[in-house]
Amino acid sequence: MKSHKEELWFNTKTRREYINITPEVQKVIDKSGIQEGLCLVNPMHITASVFVNDDEQGLIHDFDKLLETLAPHAPVEQYRHNDTGEDNADAHLKRQLMGRESLLAVTRGKLDLGPWEQIFYGEFDGRRKKRVLVKIIGE
Amino acid sequence: MKSHKEELWFNTKTRREYINITPEVQKVIDKSGIQEGLCLVNPMHITASVFVNDDEQGLIHDFDKLLETLAPHAPVEQYRHNDTGEDNADAHLKRQLMGRESLLAVTRGKLDLGPWEQIFYGEFDGRRKKRVLVKIIGE
Amino acid sequence: MKSHKEELWFNTKTRREYINITPEVQKVIDKSGIQEGLCLVNPMHITASVFVNDDEQGLIHDFDKLLETLAPHAPVEQYRHNDTGEDNADAHLKRQLMGRESLLAVTRGKLDLGPWEQIFYGEFDGRRKKRVLVKIIGE
Repeated sequence: MKSHKEELWFNTKTRREYINITPEVQKVIDKSGIQEGLCLVNPMHITASVFVNDDEQGLIHDFDKLLETLAPHAPVEQYRHNDTGEDNADAHLKRQLMGRESLLAVTRGKLDLGPWEQIFYGEFDGRRKKRVLVKIIGE
Repeated sequence: MKSHKEELWFNTKTRREYINITPEVQKVIDKSGIQEGLCLVNPMHITASVFVNDDEQGLIHDFDKLLETLAPHAPVEQYRHNDTGEDNADAHLKRQLMGRESLLAVTRGKLDLGPWEQIFYGEFDGRRKKRVLVKIIGE
Repeated sequence: MKSHKEELWFNTKTRREYINITPEVQKVIDKSGIQEGLCLVNPMHITASVFVNDDEQGLIHDFDKLLETLAPHAPVEQYRHNDTGEDNADAHLKRQLMGRESLLAVTRGKLDLGPWEQIFYGEFDGRRKKRVLVKIIGE
């Protein structure tokens, strides 16, 4: 069995951002030399999400609107987490609704994705350096 | 280490449908010959979900009602994704709320599930052929 | 390849409870002797969740409030699942929104978590004995 780990770094310009990281994940798989296995991709932070969906800007707008409806950023006083001096309680909730991690099959050295499946880094409390872990096991 | 991959195909009669696929997943594990490992099950499409819950029709009604409340299908004009000519933005959102994939432990050649855990294919934009990937690694 | 499995048991005093299980999961990894691999943690029940977020009591209050807003416990008659004599339909829905399982990278024998990532058992229908499965594969 082989294993390989890398960390990808992000620093978004806006509070919330949705970045297609599929090519970066494939590059890590290429480096690993693993042909058959499983590839875990997760943020190492708790106000961000790695999810798989469509790379279409209208849809990304719809995701963002749904998340703001279910767990709005303002008023920040509505959340007890923000009593600690933070203003990012909504980002913790949004990440939970979108999910933490994605697990991808690796087949013949490639991400085994359907035609429209793309891997996204969903940032809900950006404007600072944050990491995504990629861990692959297989052979 | 061994690995094994198969694709299961579905073509539902209605837009939304919830299908218990536990026996099909166990069959793939049987074929793989893997005794100890991990089994990833995910739709290869972005308007469907693989999730684990109870096989009880009242509950499935409750899931469907919750999803229609949080991300209703109509009016389709409420979603920017549908400006592309699609009418399935709600299906992308529903899949995100229900989750993409399930990862199951395999122990002594069997799905290591609790007494009520059943694996479901949740279709949110059906009436066409769609695939589910099953990838097992272990030995 | 090595694999190792254990079950953790919980019996909460209240219906809903959120328990940090990070040290227990690390102990299972220690026993496994696995240095590089993947660690699956999932409830074996369908009214509970294993999720990764911040160990901060205000935030846990915010999670609980969001879940009660989206899928309230009462009135129990609002759910068709409860027609079966159960009163826990909301717990099935809450678990689905919070997610079933977490998959953690294991690197050099340790949980490969970011600085604030903590693993939680989220119970939504407690006051009885329930299990969490930990399955690690790697070497």
